[in-house]
Amino acid sequence: MPVVASLAEIKQALAGIDLLPLIEAGFAAYSRGEVVVPPVGELVFDDPPGDVHIKYGYIKRDGHYVIKIASGFVDNPKLGLPSGDGLMLVFSQRTGILEAVLLDEGHLTNLRTAVAGAVVAKHLAPAKVAAVGILGAGVQGRMQLEWLRRVRAFDQAIVWGVNEGELAAYRRDMASPGLEIRTTLRAEDVAAAANLIVTCTPSTAPLLRAEWIRPGTHITAMGSDTASKQELDPAILARADRVVVDSLSQSELRGEAYRAVSAGAIGRDRLVELGRVVEDPRLRRASETEITVADLTGVAVQDIQIAKAVLGALSAPARPGSVPFG
Amino acid sequence: MPVVASLAEIKQALAGIDLLPLIEAGFAAYSRGEVVVPPVGELVFDDPPGDVHIKYGYIKRDGHYVIKIASGFVDNPKLGLPSGDGLMLVFSQRTGILEAVLLDEGHLTNLRTAVAGAVVAKHLAPAKVAAVGILGAGVQGRMQLEWLRRVRAFDQAIVWGVNEGELAAYRRDMASPGLEIRTTLRAEDVAAAANLIVTCTPSTAPLLRAEWIRPGTHITAMGSDTASKQELDPAILARADRVVVDSLSQSELRGEAYRAVSAGAIGRDRLVELGRVVEDPRLRRASETEITVADLTGVAVQDIQIAKAVLGALSAPARPGSVPFG
Repeated sequence: MPVVASLAEIKQALAGIDLLPLIEAGFAAYSRGEVVVPPVGELVFDDPPGDVHIKYGYIKRDGHYVIKIASGFVDNPKLGLPSGDGLMLVFSQRTGILEAVLLDEGHLTNLRTAVAGAVVAKHLAPAKVAAVGILGAGVQGRMQLEWLRRVRAFDQAIVWGVNEGELAAYRRDMASPGLEIRTTLRAEDVAAAANLIVTCTPSTAPLLRAEWIRPGTHITAMGSDTASKQELDPAILARADRVVVDSLSQSELRGEAYRAVSAGAIGRDRLVELGRVVEDPRLRRASETEITVADLTGVAVQDIQIAKAVLGALSAPARPGSVPFG
Repeated sequence: MPVVASLAEIKQALAGIDLLPLIEAGFAAYSRGEVVVPPVGELVFDDPPGDVHIKYGYIKRDGHYVIKIASGFVDNPKLGLPSGDGLMLVFSQRTGILEAVLLDEGHLTNLRTAVAGAVVAKHLAPAKVAAVGILGAGVQGRMQLEWLRRVRAFDQAIVWGVNEGELAAYRRDMASPGLEIRTTLRAEDVAAAANLIVTCTPSTAPLLRAEWIRPGTHITAMGSDTASKQELDPAILARADRVVVDSLSQSELRGEAYRAVSAGAIGRDRLVELGRVVEDPRLRRASETEITVADLTGVAVQDIQIAKAVLGALSAPARPGSVPFG
């Protein structure tokens, strides 16, 4: 029988895992061509509207392969249910035998997405962060702020959201000693105050305009993972000194880079893959005045790395004194 | 939390389910265009050799969607492990929420495949069966024989296999009052004795020749589900009065019909889809002298139907006196 782990058990297992270097190594392996990631499987429903993605793959000569299923049904909150659900399955690459069913309800996807934001910021954000800016006051907007603290020191954050209710909830949930959190309904305020900005919304139209962006700003665009979603004015990518994407192949079909290339704002030759940035210091931010942009659409290697790590921790003997990860 | 069911629990649940009409209705819905089945996801490994298939889909306006993962690693028996593993996942079509994890280890796939053989025989086999012939003395060769007894009366079976050891095991396992089981290493013997033949081998070259097939014979070719597998001489399909496939679209790329059409033995206009045969008596065997062939490559709607039924039985209150299904 495989290990079957609930969300609570998964959170317990995560407490002992240092995710950032694992996700970073995953991007590097991906950009070295060592990761097999077939096209994403998809189911789309109209009534009620919903979509399901099946992402799967493996690192060559690694021990495992991983299949992730994630669903998004936007009307679920009307029923008092979360809009997303998901699980990850870990199999042996040597026998095909199912080793773990991780009933993470989408948490591992949220987490590996947030960790990717930290990997990007580690290599591309300015050394001195005046304030962190977050667009999107949801789960990812919370996790990004938390994870950025692992790679940069900062004591101010400014958060944009669509209504005062969600912003008040954000301030309440994220209040933390040594961190001042301001909120705003005007995205321009974020660009004016922050030099490390993460966008994590489901927007289908630009939220940030090029003329707002100040020299020395890094922006990670996290929300756009389809052809129709968009958070950045294509002119931002044109102005940027560096444009990094998590997957060159995915950027042909989805995300900010896809939109900017389609609009003629930049050429595809401007795009550099994140795994190369991880491995080559020359591809990272070179000064405190550069504008840098990273466009993340989510790559299966992130799922592979986090699922393997959780299986490893679940299989390991319990350690005394460990605490659950938030 | 979803229901998580082991193989033993799944077998218990199956005891109360009448699968044949469910699978039959699934084929009918499929041929009416009511089933959404995206392309199969696939992972292929070289060392050790293995492949993984992800089949998924749903019946429109039905309550659920199903994702099935099945693996085959041919070297596993050297390690004392079964060559196949698998599971089925059942989700709500209204919310995307995972309702069941069926850890069936491939049993439900074997079972829905055997039931499809019975559906075919119900509509295409001669009314009077002199003897059933089975090519392939493995798990499927056993289940086919068992399931054919639900749709036709017969007291003789002749089974072909690749060595005396597996044939002796087959005779021992399948001995049953009122059923004489003969075995042979010559496929010709099967064609000479049986007028209801099922082939369920992993063969990549024809096992049955056209000149051996007698009028009044029905053949269900079950083993070939890829472009490279083949069990029937294409001339058998050319000689047949009716050629039925479980999926017209899959038959463009895999199975006996694909091979016969590629070889120029038959035109695609000769192919009739099984779901239409289920619904239209005029497409069924019309006399005891016709030769009929059905080519089954396996359709996700079978997985959908069986997984939903198991979930339903697992969710229902326990019934007293039920016995596990073999």
